[in-house]
Amino acid sequence: MDIKEIYESYKDYIDKEIEIEGWIKKHRKQKEIGFIDLSDGTCFKILQIVYDKSTKDFDYIGKIHYGSSIKVKGKIIKSPGKGQEFEMLAKEIELIGDCPLDYPLQPKDHSLEFFREQAYLRPRVTLFQAVFRVRSVLAMAIHEYFQSHGYLYLHAPIFTASDCEGAGEMFQVTTLDLEKVAQTGKVSYEEEFFGKPVGLSVSTQFEAETFAQAFKKVYTFGPTFRADKSHTPYHVAEFWQIEPEVAFCDLEGIMDIAEELVKFVIKYTQEKAKDEMDYLDKQSNGKLLDKLTNVLTSTFKRVPYKDCIEILKKSQKEFEFKPDYGSDISKEHEKYLAEYFKCPFFITMWPKELKAFYMKQMPDGTVAGADLEMPGIGEVFGMSQREEDLEKLVSRMKELDMKIEDYEWYLKLRKYGTCTRSGFGIGFERLIMYITGMENIRDVVAYPRTEKNCEY
Amino acid sequence: MDIKEIYESYKDYIDKEIEIEGWIKKHRKQKEIGFIDLSDGTCFKILQIVYDKSTKDFDYIGKIHYGSSIKVKGKIIKSPGKGQEFEMLAKEIELIGDCPLDYPLQPKDHSLEFFREQAYLRPRVTLFQAVFRVRSVLAMAIHEYFQSHGYLYLHAPIFTASDCEGAGEMFQVTTLDLEKVAQTGKVSYEEEFFGKPVGLSVSTQFEAETFAQAFKKVYTFGPTFRADKSHTPYHVAEFWQIEPEVAFCDLEGIMDIAEELVKFVIKYTQEKAKDEMDYLDKQSNGKLLDKLTNVLTSTFKRVPYKDCIEILKKSQKEFEFKPDYGSDISKEHEKYLAEYFKCPFFITMWPKELKAFYMKQMPDGTVAGADLEMPGIGEVFGMSQREEDLEKLVSRMKELDMKIEDYEWYLKLRKYGTCTRSGFGIGFERLIMYITGMENIRDVVAYPRTEKNCEY
Repeated sequence: MDIKEIYESYKDYIDKEIEIEGWIKKHRKQKEIGFIDLSDGTCFKILQIVYDKSTKDFDYIGKIHYGSSIKVKGKIIKSPGKGQEFEMLAKEIELIGDCPLDYPLQPKDHSLEFFREQAYLRPRVTLFQAVFRVRSVLAMAIHEYFQSHGYLYLHAPIFTASDCEGAGEMFQVTTLDLEKVAQTGKVSYEEEFFGKPVGLSVSTQFEAETFAQAFKKVYTFGPTFRADKSHTPYHVAEFWQIEPEVAFCDLEGIMDIAEELVKFVIKYTQEKAKDEMDYLDKQSNGKLLDKLTNVLTSTFKRVPYKDCIEILKKSQKEFEFKPDYGSDISKEHEKYLAEYFKCPFFITMWPKELKAFYMKQMPDGTVAGADLEMPGIGEVFGMSQREEDLEKLVSRMKELDMKIEDYEWYLKLRKYGTCTRSGFGIGFERLIMYITGMENIRDVVAYPRTEKNCEY
Repeated sequence: MDIKEIYESYKDYIDKEIEIEGWIKKHRKQKEIGFIDLSDGTCFKILQIVYDKSTKDFDYIGKIHYGSSIKVKGKIIKSPGKGQEFEMLAKEIELIGDCPLDYPLQPKDHSLEFFREQAYLRPRVTLFQAVFRVRSVLAMAIHEYFQSHGYLYLHAPIFTASDCEGAGEMFQVTTLDLEKVAQTGKVSYEEEFFGKPVGLSVSTQFEAETFAQAFKKVYTFGPTFRADKSHTPYHVAEFWQIEPEVAFCDLEGIMDIAEELVKFVIKYTQEKAKDEMDYLDKQSNGKLLDKLTNVLTSTFKRVPYKDCIEILKKSQKEFEFKPDYGSDISKEHEKYLAEYFKCPFFITMWPKELKAFYMKQMPDGTVAGADLEMPGIGEVFGMSQREEDLEKLVSRMKELDMKIEDYEWYLKLRKYGTCTRSGFGIGFERLIMYITGMENIRDVVAYPRTEKNCEY
């Protein structure tokens, strides 16, 4: 059975013989009695095991190492000590898997960098037990939100011969032997698996649009790949992305959905991973839950880009980049605005030059796009209403010297039963960082992939 | 609002003015009255729209094409006709997006092959509305099962420098310019993003094992890639896979979980996608639900490999491949056994030569692995208890001439707190095919990727 089951209704197990397996998190033996903190990973809390002279092989048990896996037979009793309501009194403890003294995770302070190097062991560490459980619960929260609101979950393709947002950072896939290519001096595309160059998709938006025009409400949630060499705490080459796409929905509507989703997943995570969130909050000296509560109780403001520029100009603050209509909003500007509004806010209606070609064009030269900004982190994700008018879309693409013929089926969506549609794309890891308070993306990904780094 | 909401409680909307948007699935206009079947994709059923001379622009509306998107204002009324309990009486119908007469999906019979060529439009087709909704619901069923049983959802890495089951079919990724490699005659690994050859993972089992040794119960659910050139209705190069891994669990335990999971997801799908499953059942002349009901009401048999060989030998049937201890169970054998047992069954305890190196070795030369066989399809997926003993594992790897040093961290799991653990891997598309009755994997994948085929 799982330790979680005991915590869910420990009174049912009082004085009953049970068997439990797990790993030793702490072990202290005194002369007549010993204590083991046992974790089986099913719940964040440990189960305290007590053994004494009545337990079989008392002396032998006393020598079992920290990190070992054991099986315990015994019964749950009300705890005479403080710190826990119940504990397990062991009748027998059996060593399953020893953990010798060269175990890298000896119980002392290690740096996050040390844990990154021991990525295959770090899920056993309390902090990462919290982070990866929250990650799992948060993923379920995403599915729960969309499925309960009638969305279709689309598994969009990863392999793609086209490219949504510029090919610069796309990984190519190949089944050619590179050494042979070098030797023969020839790239035989006819020998490639797909018979042509194919890369790993950087966005599922276009495919999601095809399904939104059939199912109205769809979302994708899968891995995305970018050969991004930025060495920052926010970039990895492989990350998960959530991209909903909704037909008959305009920019206002998609902002409603984004706000509702963010609040839903925070609430869900706080409920389903309460112990983990409380732990992470303590790590942040109480700042984490305050920050999240502020999100839950705020109505997200919606402020046009031009008003944001006005606020920045009027601030009389010395910015490194002078705020100016037509220029991007920089990190320092985001920070100022976050302090100004004191709550999450959307910056809406951007000059079209600053945004992607597919956004809905307005008569005043802006596009119906918005970025969600959160205090303490800045831009979290962007969204837009898509241009549903074929002529306007093509004319914008021509302005940008894009190859119209590469977008044939995407454009045809505007020919056959077109409609208003909007969507957004959330980088899942950024969301996890925001909700766990972890400051480096490498610490919220099981096996992070970055430039020159693909271990495990 | 969504058509789904109306179906959920149509009585609440009777005689109330509402607005609804969707696409025209059928349009028949008579002299004084017109009928439109409207779909918005949120539910499998269509909403019947009635318009007449009292509706604004009666003649204009009559000319709106099949496939167009429209907005309808009007009210829900009890239907005087038969076939539906209610319908919508239109006050106004507004054309949003026209669908001209060259629309490829004209309402007539098309082949599945034709739809494959129109992959960006086929989600609008009734059959695919059913298939892709079932796919979505089934994905949620998987998450629901594991999360409600306390499993951790692990996003295992796709990029990998190692290879679980042999490199033959692995796609490589590269950021090198292949033309440049050919020109310079040199593969500059130092210029590769990762600085070394990296491929796309074919299994997440090893990474799942690292997490199972911390969280006890984990599962992965993500895309997997194989450069498999088999031209069969069962193979695509990009597919989704579900791989649970459970610590302190033996082969019997993992078979219990596999059986429970299969039954859970069938039941869940039948409940949450009832209309779609009824439609698919009709397509199969009632065979589909019969087949699934047989699964739900059966206790899956567990039969050792050697007993299966005995049954095959005693059958006195003329097989193309003679059944023999030590040889694999072929498709014709599976078929005979399925008819013999008349229910799903596991073939357990295989000769070690027929199975992967990591399976738990038994004293009699077998390994604790099992394949789940389902009547009508054969092997669905395999599972095993993993060898948790370091020495036995290494000695088997040496027998097979494997490079021990490539598996350093995997082996270390057996050094630090090892334990019994078991897992399985389900090809998600095969499961969808089984549950929808679709016979070609290309029809259950949104944008299938196969040899020489990577469109959209």
